[in-house]
Amino acid sequence: MKSLTVEDYVRGVREGNRAVLARAITLVESLSRQHEVLAQEVLHRLLPHTGKARRLGITGVPGVGKSTFIENFGCFLTDRGHRLAVLTIDPSSSLSGGSILGDKTRMERLCQSPQAFIRPSPSGDSLGGVARRTRETLLLCEAAGFDTILVESVGVGQTEIALRSMVDFFLLLLLPGAGDELQGIKKGIVEIADGVAINKADGDNRLRAEQSKADQEAALHYLQPATPGWQTQVQLCSALTGEGVPEIWQRILDFYAVLEPRGVIRERRRKQTLDWLEHLIHDELRRQFYRDPKVTARIPGVREAVLRGETTAVLAARELLTVHQAKATGESAPAKSP
Amino acid sequence: MKSLTVEDYVRGVREGNRAVLARAITLVESLSRQHEVLAQEVLHRLLPHTGKARRLGITGVPGVGKSTFIENFGCFLTDRGHRLAVLTIDPSSSLSGGSILGDKTRMERLCQSPQAFIRPSPSGDSLGGVARRTRETLLLCEAAGFDTILVESVGVGQTEIALRSMVDFFLLLLLPGAGDELQGIKKGIVEIADGVAINKADGDNRLRAEQSKADQEAALHYLQPATPGWQTQVQLCSALTGEGVPEIWQRILDFYAVLEPRGVIRERRRKQTLDWLEHLIHDELRRQFYRDPKVTARIPGVREAVLRGETTAVLAARELLTVHQAKATGESAPAKSP
Repeated sequence: MKSLTVEDYVRGVREGNRAVLARAITLVESLSRQHEVLAQEVLHRLLPHTGKARRLGITGVPGVGKSTFIENFGCFLTDRGHRLAVLTIDPSSSLSGGSILGDKTRMERLCQSPQAFIRPSPSGDSLGGVARRTRETLLLCEAAGFDTILVESVGVGQTEIALRSMVDFFLLLLLPGAGDELQGIKKGIVEIADGVAINKADGDNRLRAEQSKADQEAALHYLQPATPGWQTQVQLCSALTGEGVPEIWQRILDFYAVLEPRGVIRERRRKQTLDWLEHLIHDELRRQFYRDPKVTARIPGVREAVLRGETTAVLAARELLTVHQAKATGESAPAKSP
Repeated sequence: MKSLTVEDYVRGVREGNRAVLARAITLVESLSRQHEVLAQEVLHRLLPHTGKARRLGITGVPGVGKSTFIENFGCFLTDRGHRLAVLTIDPSSSLSGGSILGDKTRMERLCQSPQAFIRPSPSGDSLGGVARRTRETLLLCEAAGFDTILVESVGVGQTEIALRSMVDFFLLLLLPGAGDELQGIKKGIVEIADGVAINKADGDNRLRAEQSKADQEAALHYLQPATPGWQTQVQLCSALTGEGVPEIWQRILDFYAVLEPRGVIRERRRKQTLDWLEHLIHDELRRQFYRDPKVTARIPGVREAVLRGETTAVLAARELLTVHQAKATGESAPAKSP
């Protein structure tokens, strides 16, 4: 495959060329230092063309019907002329063998739509890395002219917080039936949702779904809203029949209609961007620390010493930091801290 | 006041000398570098004598009757021969003018008990600093022979997470009356509680308290337990009349009776200690970064550039880190990153 220049990437993405977009995402996902320099240059050039899409997040435990929901919701949007990108954060996909084939099977109609673009995350990397690339992939999709970006996560780990930090509106999918079925939901997920939808509210499930709705509404009653000035509601839907999907979309439109004029979305994005910058800095400071061979050689011993009460945590931290900084200045570590 | 040697501090604390303990805590709280060296030496020497107390945390919004509860609960314990230390984390106390006088007034009986030791946090410092000193104060109190340490926080900020990370059992005090009154509770507090007590469940409030209990139990139903193998229960009490206080204590004893043989408490403390070590390291790495004048000079401009889309977050983070590391090695910052 012919290698592309920065100019090729920028022009291709801006023209909405799907093949170039796909390659630009692969570039952003690359762990190679050389690719990263190129990727950052491409992103840099594309930044002025980002920020215009609705950024939506969706989560729910496996089995909740997320793929079916996205298929139905996505086709509902593309039928109305929207251009939709679907991204997946799934750090466990290395275990399940990747979800590409699964997506193609379960989202058959959506996958065939020229207005939809579906991209699973690469597998087998740290959460931070996946989130980082998903965030940049989102920007690439915006630059390619998609007006709605739906980022999906699996709903069973730390991914929801990372997801929440890159979207405007966060939708939680639940199953009908209170109690056990809901136990798989990680603590605190309901609290960060701008919308809750009970899926599979069809046929015999309808009554149980109504009960779940009431239960969830009671639980939400105790929580502060995830977005100031916005009341998180519980809606029923059936991804299978499509019932309730237009109402969920309407609720998302209302979210923007109410909060955009008040500057809430803009403020959220500003904060997300600055938090992201901080996160990258902290991440890199830690990474450098924990990759420093002088530090890693001492960590097990220091931890044991702290656990055995042979040293205080403060003294132990100082010892490791002294070792780390001695390396940075090229000196050997002093025998005693000052 | 004659200055004490390390030996004086260690012996005084071990003998349970309250005046020396108070001075040791002041030493630990000091921001002076010289005091810190001394304090760490004292702590180091005392570490073998720590770890034997029950470490309890308590929180609740202002007005929930926390001081009255602690007075009643504390006297209940001291009447039974326990030695109790009460520590307060209150980063807002600089605003309220400090809580020492308040505590003395509101916990009159407990303050007079020779078996109780009450110590508010110093005001006007960062949360991280307060938590750090509270943790070390807790260790000092253990070395002084207190068998129960009750750490209190105000329940309206980030303090609960810091508090949770230093105690075995975490008690949340609530007011009767669902809804509005509970809105003051920060998101997620219920999820980290090992016990919930509805206070002021007396007189006309009794019925409302029963209702709150049912509501809270319903809410807990959706949450994973704060401690694996332990079911968080909701109890009623009246700190004013003392009703319910023995049952809360019994529940705490049950907690230890069930979880100690399984090693859950020991494992929690090990994890807390290692997390604490990590936290100190990360904190110091960040502190050094954000105090680096070359970094602080550039941060506002870099943030603005990122917000305006003139650079990517990754490039901006790299720029700041390069500047920071150039300082560490004594070189000037390179014009370009490699």
